[in-house]
Amino acid sequence: MESKKVGIIGIGLIGGSIAKGLRASGWASELIGIEANPAHAIKALSLRLVDEVLPLSEAIDRVDIFVCATPVDILVQIIPNVLDQLKPGQIVIEVGSTKTPVYEALKNHPKRAQFVSTHPMAGTEFSGPEAAVDGLFVGKRGVICDKELSSPEAIETIESLYRDGLGMNLIYMESIDHDVHTAYISHISHICSFALANTVLEKEKNEERIFELASTGFESTVRLAKSSPETWSQIFHQNQENLMDVLDEYINTLLKYKGLMLSGSYDKLKDELGKANDIGRILNKQ
Amino acid sequence: MESKKVGIIGIGLIGGSIAKGLRASGWASELIGIEANPAHAIKALSLRLVDEVLPLSEAIDRVDIFVCATPVDILVQIIPNVLDQLKPGQIVIEVGSTKTPVYEALKNHPKRAQFVSTHPMAGTEFSGPEAAVDGLFVGKRGVICDKELSSPEAIETIESLYRDGLGMNLIYMESIDHDVHTAYISHISHICSFALANTVLEKEKNEERIFELASTGFESTVRLAKSSPETWSQIFHQNQENLMDVLDEYINTLLKYKGLMLSGSYDKLKDELGKANDIGRILNKQ
Repeated sequence: MESKKVGIIGIGLIGGSIAKGLRASGWASELIGIEANPAHAIKALSLRLVDEVLPLSEAIDRVDIFVCATPVDILVQIIPNVLDQLKPGQIVIEVGSTKTPVYEALKNHPKRAQFVSTHPMAGTEFSGPEAAVDGLFVGKRGVICDKELSSPEAIETIESLYRDGLGMNLIYMESIDHDVHTAYISHISHICSFALANTVLEKEKNEERIFELASTGFESTVRLAKSSPETWSQIFHQNQENLMDVLDEYINTLLKYKGLMLSGSYDKLKDELGKANDIGRILNKQ
Repeated sequence: MESKKVGIIGIGLIGGSIAKGLRASGWASELIGIEANPAHAIKALSLRLVDEVLPLSEAIDRVDIFVCATPVDILVQIIPNVLDQLKPGQIVIEVGSTKTPVYEALKNHPKRAQFVSTHPMAGTEFSGPEAAVDGLFVGKRGVICDKELSSPEAIETIESLYRDGLGMNLIYMESIDHDVHTAYISHISHICSFALANTVLEKEKNEERIFELASTGFESTVRLAKSSPETWSQIFHQNQENLMDVLDEYINTLLKYKGLMLSGSYDKLKDELGKANDIGRILNKQ
């Protein structure tokens, strides 16, 4: 497949890391940034994440593929607008953490076949263009949603972008299932971690003690609490229904632990912790 | 300081890693294991964590210092027994994750000055002799509790064990404060992580999907859920009162998030997540 001209809309952690990956693999011959935040635009250029930053109206004539990597609340406004302006053969994809709102916004769009809904399952707790890292996606999983709603040509190109351009392994699912699974596996982890940080900061007024006593275990559990509040409040918003379901289950699990402790049933608590150990077996499959 | 003969009571992750550290630094000239589990004793010998495994009654004539690294519920039984048998100049320390129960068990012991209460703040999610790792403690913090209750000679020796033998930086506090702070910073992290694993395993019956979709964020948050159920149910038991306090705060934080989401107050939720970000600043001080 010949190399492509790619427009990155939103050059932050994810958009910037995609740019780096596509440049390193030679999959993209040219990278054009479309960025609403002037400071981010300047930073992205100085880091050479993209070759140029242009307004969408100019970029539209220059690129084969747009990758929309804005926060999820912006995606639903931008994608229909981009799609309206696409010429035949051009493709737009988005890489957000929730899928159903975009599915709903685009399901009746006349150019729906030129859009591909995707989610590269990788990230860090940092944000902005300076958070972009080399090789972020290599060996990780990329999700393509609602494959049958995109044209076979668009799917083939985007499969190549993920496999050949970023080194990812692809899996396929419906948007609605994606949002259920990511609530369970990704979004609730962020809730846990943010809430743990809030709790410890509230209870432990002695900052020096946190610093002194924090072990690698605490740092690991609280790592995601360093993530962008803007990004994650929007993800929680867009996936509220699924997240409520799993948050209730999480709170119930904590209340169950509490009940077992208060009644002195530590053998039963030990059994629960033993069941939790099973997550290690599943994660270590790979 | 001349090298010492050290007895390790309980040769698991912590006891085994201490043995490795003291051997590597040359701080210990001889390492004798005291181990109730025959399989662990055989494993510890085959891994050369210790030179010999002996019953306590024989080890007592051979060592300068005992390091008691058993689960915390066993500590309170073993330490008084060891202390009863110590000759002048011998020392016993323990390295458990809770301090108040041992403090209570020993406060009136006639040989209390030969005992030092300590906590090396390091670990992994694995357990048993095969989990012992080189350099686990280097550069980490070691806590010495209730320093004034031990003899100056015992404190000096144990400070050297931690600093010169294991490469740790020492901090000092009272047992009662230790247990408050570790509930906030270490024990609640384990609760969060175990409960997250239980929740996801309960909600996500499709094991393959967990495996496929788990990103590094999920793996980081759920890492501690692989920890030993025996060890941690006992730690939760021994520190129940402090843990209840912080667990209640944690559940309240989650309920606050839930309320903000249900009322659509995502700007307020974003503010809460922003406050949580502050944990990054504190942890990155070092």
